[in-house]
Amino acid sequence: MTYPFLEACHGRPTEYTPIWIMRQAGRYLEEYREVQKTADFMTVCKTPELTVEVTLQPVRILGVDAAILFSDILTPIEKMGMKVQFLKGKGPVLEPAITSMQAVDKLGVPDPEDDLGFVLESIRILRRELEGKVPLIGFCGAPFTLACYMIEGETSKDYSDAKRLMFQAPHVYSALLEKITETVSVYADAQIKAGAQAIQFFDTWAGLLSRADYQAYALPYVKRAIAYVRERHPDTPIVYYINGSATILDLMQSAGSSVIGLDWRHDLDTAWKQLGEGTVVQGNLDPCTLFLPQDELRKRVKDVLDRAAGRPGHIFNLGHGILPPTPRENAIALVQMVHEMSRRK
Amino acid sequence: MTYPFLEACHGRPTEYTPIWIMRQAGRYLEEYREVQKTADFMTVCKTPELTVEVTLQPVRILGVDAAILFSDILTPIEKMGMKVQFLKGKGPVLEPAITSMQAVDKLGVPDPEDDLGFVLESIRILRRELEGKVPLIGFCGAPFTLACYMIEGETSKDYSDAKRLMFQAPHVYSALLEKITETVSVYADAQIKAGAQAIQFFDTWAGLLSRADYQAYALPYVKRAIAYVRERHPDTPIVYYINGSATILDLMQSAGSSVIGLDWRHDLDTAWKQLGEGTVVQGNLDPCTLFLPQDELRKRVKDVLDRAAGRPGHIFNLGHGILPPTPRENAIALVQMVHEMSRRK
Repeated sequence: MTYPFLEACHGRPTEYTPIWIMRQAGRYLEEYREVQKTADFMTVCKTPELTVEVTLQPVRILGVDAAILFSDILTPIEKMGMKVQFLKGKGPVLEPAITSMQAVDKLGVPDPEDDLGFVLESIRILRRELEGKVPLIGFCGAPFTLACYMIEGETSKDYSDAKRLMFQAPHVYSALLEKITETVSVYADAQIKAGAQAIQFFDTWAGLLSRADYQAYALPYVKRAIAYVRERHPDTPIVYYINGSATILDLMQSAGSSVIGLDWRHDLDTAWKQLGEGTVVQGNLDPCTLFLPQDELRKRVKDVLDRAAGRPGHIFNLGHGILPPTPRENAIALVQMVHEMSRRK
Repeated sequence: MTYPFLEACHGRPTEYTPIWIMRQAGRYLEEYREVQKTADFMTVCKTPELTVEVTLQPVRILGVDAAILFSDILTPIEKMGMKVQFLKGKGPVLEPAITSMQAVDKLGVPDPEDDLGFVLESIRILRRELEGKVPLIGFCGAPFTLACYMIEGETSKDYSDAKRLMFQAPHVYSALLEKITETVSVYADAQIKAGAQAIQFFDTWAGLLSRADYQAYALPYVKRAIAYVRERHPDTPIVYYINGSATILDLMQSAGSSVIGLDWRHDLDTAWKQLGEGTVVQGNLDPCTLFLPQDELRKRVKDVLDRAAGRPGHIFNLGHGILPPTPRENAIALVQMVHEMSRRK
């Protein structure tokens, strides 16, 4: 059994361009909102029955070519020893924010089976449920982005407190990053062992770094995590996503992932040319274009596909997560459009 | 009398590289915080005596090569007819958010002398106070970025509500942008007439747009505002700043400003080469590097200067506004470092 998503990850030709959508299990689906009425976000993440249900929803409703484990990048962080809460209108709040070596020393490296068994259990169930349909992607934050949340203690526009610690207390920063890197390495490995057929590392905030700082403070850690996974699972595709990667694209590529996740600011053809045509790319429609009328949306989809020029090694996706107010019918239409318009004659 | 800042704006050689700092009048200065104890942000913006005082502070304390009118890009928006408040911990709140043609129809185009006389008065006083010291830069938001605030009603990470309106109600969006463009055009013109010797257009959020959308929804308006000013004041430098311009740098340049303001994600030499060496550039140290110890900061300053290679037409600045927790002594040291290290032998 071959899956278009996995074939594309390996750079092999497919009948049509596979598509999945970042945050495809989300509030834009009424079926998801129904589940959220009975359980809050963290409960959904931690209860295999609910995780499985919302993970499967977009496969059923949209017909996407891959499922991605419903999770949050902060799930393992809680198990490192921080209190993680999701507050309405504020997003994640992590306490106490990490600002000292003592705080780093108190953090542990969670054992995936013992501490994150609910994730692995969800993956095992999902593989059984999905068999013969679509492959399952694992879900993991990249070290720098996780550090941003852990130091800042909440979301931020510029993560200047995180960068401040990085500059003012580099030994604290690097000790923290070591622990996070170990955590995500074994966590990603465990997800694949449990059945994830690919894994995506989300480095959402790495685009806030200058080239020099990305190279010094983010790249070495994510590179090590990717190498750890690759060594143990040489055939499992690793997708690496950054939001706002324009000035660091070559450095991002050197992290060693199988697939480069591109944000919407890139013109796909320009970025792909920079990366080299042998690279596998994922992306990169602006999530906001899903607010367009469908005839306009169709032009945008065509533009991305035209830029990909039917070359093997393109996975269609948005350039960032789908937004809660997105019209559900447009998400469904998007998947149909990509499948129809990309079908090789 | 020639000023290094203005000479550099015209691409002419200067004895040393001039520097000013975005948000140089700000909370990182205790002198500024003293003023804020007696008057809130909007009151400082609207009271010439206070505006003048805080505008002059960084000239006196840091020795920067230009003063920039202390203001907020939302100042003219209030006079268009929106209620603008700055709430602690939340930033600007604009009411009611613009979501319909009726709301756009209600907005007016403020007359600078009648409605924004306090700004022009501040400029006139500042010119007298500054004569013989440094030139004065005027301050103006660019249309797209102002529209983001007006539609969203508050700050946002992605301004997806603004982009949603842009896509779902393009006639409302364009009517709004027409009014904003007229407002900023006459406002910028009036600032120069009152004595501003250069003007900066802040298009902080334009970096959230794809190339196609920047070209369709932001560029035409800022281009028109710049042309309006240029036609009336052909010798007055116009600086155009975007945060996150990597993928739209060529389009940004086509807006027609005299100076391109670069954010810190660019390597200055790479960006300057893309723009062409005849272009005048401003930037682009990461504001967070001011948290580094001074010996490390010195290396970062040297790196930017090395990339500029002593060519005429470089104005040193940060790549975004200086942050409130910045150590005051590092801001002072930055200005000294730039002056010392760039002095032509």
